[in-house]
Amino acid sequence: MSGGLPRTAAVIGTGTIGLGWIALFAARGLRVRVSSTRSDVRAHVLGELERFAGSMPGGAADPEELAGRLEFTDDVESAVAGADVVQENAPENLELKQELFARIAAAAPADALLLSSTSTLLPDALGAALGTPGRVVVGHPFNPPHIVALVEVVAGERADPDVVERAVAFYRWLGKTPVVLRRALPGFVANRLQSALLRESIHLVREGAVTVDELDDIVTSSIGPRWAVVGPFQAFHLGGGPGGLKQWLAHLGAGLEASWDGLGRPPVDDDTVARLLAQVDASFGREPFETLAARRDTRQNAVIAALGETA
Amino acid sequence: MSGGLPRTAAVIGTGTIGLGWIALFAARGLRVRVSSTRSDVRAHVLGELERFAGSMPGGAADPEELAGRLEFTDDVESAVAGADVVQENAPENLELKQELFARIAAAAPADALLLSSTSTLLPDALGAALGTPGRVVVGHPFNPPHIVALVEVVAGERADPDVVERAVAFYRWLGKTPVVLRRALPGFVANRLQSALLRESIHLVREGAVTVDELDDIVTSSIGPRWAVVGPFQAFHLGGGPGGLKQWLAHLGAGLEASWDGLGRPPVDDDTVARLLAQVDASFGREPFETLAARRDTRQNAVIAALGETA
Repeated sequence: MSGGLPRTAAVIGTGTIGLGWIALFAARGLRVRVSSTRSDVRAHVLGELERFAGSMPGGAADPEELAGRLEFTDDVESAVAGADVVQENAPENLELKQELFARIAAAAPADALLLSSTSTLLPDALGAALGTPGRVVVGHPFNPPHIVALVEVVAGERADPDVVERAVAFYRWLGKTPVVLRRALPGFVANRLQSALLRESIHLVREGAVTVDELDDIVTSSIGPRWAVVGPFQAFHLGGGPGGLKQWLAHLGAGLEASWDGLGRPPVDDDTVARLLAQVDASFGREPFETLAARRDTRQNAVIAALGETA
Repeated sequence: MSGGLPRTAAVIGTGTIGLGWIALFAARGLRVRVSSTRSDVRAHVLGELERFAGSMPGGAADPEELAGRLEFTDDVESAVAGADVVQENAPENLELKQELFARIAAAAPADALLLSSTSTLLPDALGAALGTPGRVVVGHPFNPPHIVALVEVVAGERADPDVVERAVAFYRWLGKTPVVLRRALPGFVANRLQSALLRESIHLVREGAVTVDELDDIVTSSIGPRWAVVGPFQAFHLGGGPGGLKQWLAHLGAGLEASWDGLGRPPVDDDTVARLLAQVDASFGREPFETLAARRDTRQNAVIAALGETA
């Protein structure tokens, strides 16, 4: 795809993330070559495709039509041969992925984008076994990848800027929101922010301030909708009134560090786990996973559509 | 309002929070008595009312109609005399508020709800000067209170459960989402969660992983829309696949504490403040506060409406 639009993508791995990419790539009209270590890969993917097609942002896609764009291959090499883009979704095991990318790089076109969905490994490490280690770029999606817009793009130190630019252009063309990280800290950015919120959430439940469903209600009726609209920095900038963040920091700056030191750092011991599981079961255990996930996806798409209409 | 619906509310204080309550109360048909230490209170409130009326969730209200429901009083006593509900929004100063609530309790009907918008003070302390200190209940809104649904309801240890129930019923009648906290930690719940996210956000900017606008883009394209739809616990429950939170904790539990210890605790020193202000100015400084706030409110209402339609 050095010149024109991508036509063929290879997706390696058919877990939840791989399935999301397969559905989205096919919905955007790409021919998708699917490679998986599962023996029942065809039945598995086609069986799951309906659910993904039905929750495509912008409106349901026809699962038959998507299925018609898929090819199932016997090995990684035939999946990536002639592909414009390769999106890898293997288990989070560095050796496994290094070996995989060595095979991918040897069999794929020299200008194919080599992308990894990893949430924990660094691109230079993933490409270490390649002659051009900077070729592998991380394109870390959020679950489910066909719905949530963000893709964290992380390039290695030896990456060719042109390759990074092409990765960004590809994700934009897909309809995603790629953000190139300037530096890769463990967990990248979004998962670190999730982790920070979860840490304090578990602390508040452990301390008996709220139950898990009360905490969820608090989030979905305040900071969730807020952060769907403005990120934390713009939110605090506007929270400071016409004086902006400057006024807010002047007003609260001294107390900010103090408030941080009052935040929790709960142990994840047996007692914590037992309490969380019991409360989660009481709150969400009555409905099957599929029902809850389908409602989440429908509502997620409604929020994304509303944001798109008022952009 | 011991029996029927509320008819008259007193709002003490006309800062951003007070103004939001005034607009919302009037939009719901209440007669609103406004008390403020500002000498230009009438001009100030009527001048601001248009902006609040225009961003009312569910559709713009007529500012003239809202203005017709307001009364401006000379003192706190005449504002609260005969009121069904009192919502106090004075500065966060305990002595000031204690004195205020003593005057309010002496002049208001014995069954009037005495509510405080405080984000930092505890209800028992606020009511300490009263014969019945449990009468004061915290109803802590989120900014702007006419738009964001959450009200954190915090009752003192000596609160009458019936009063708490009536406070909850009142906020529900208003269209809010009241959540009664089981225990009051400093900052309550939502602000602690905001603080946890902001701490890590500032850390990531300081470490050079992203700029403030890149971080905002990451949040608004991933965890923001997610948390508008499902809170962190349901999100992680569904993130675990059909096995739910149990499977997720079994998979990641050991790494969870380790990931927490990798989170940041940045100093709020001059260098941090300078860097944040420069980046915020570069990202948001080109548009005036009013434009940004109006866009935030329009989009916030669109998200809330979309959530309401798919509830």
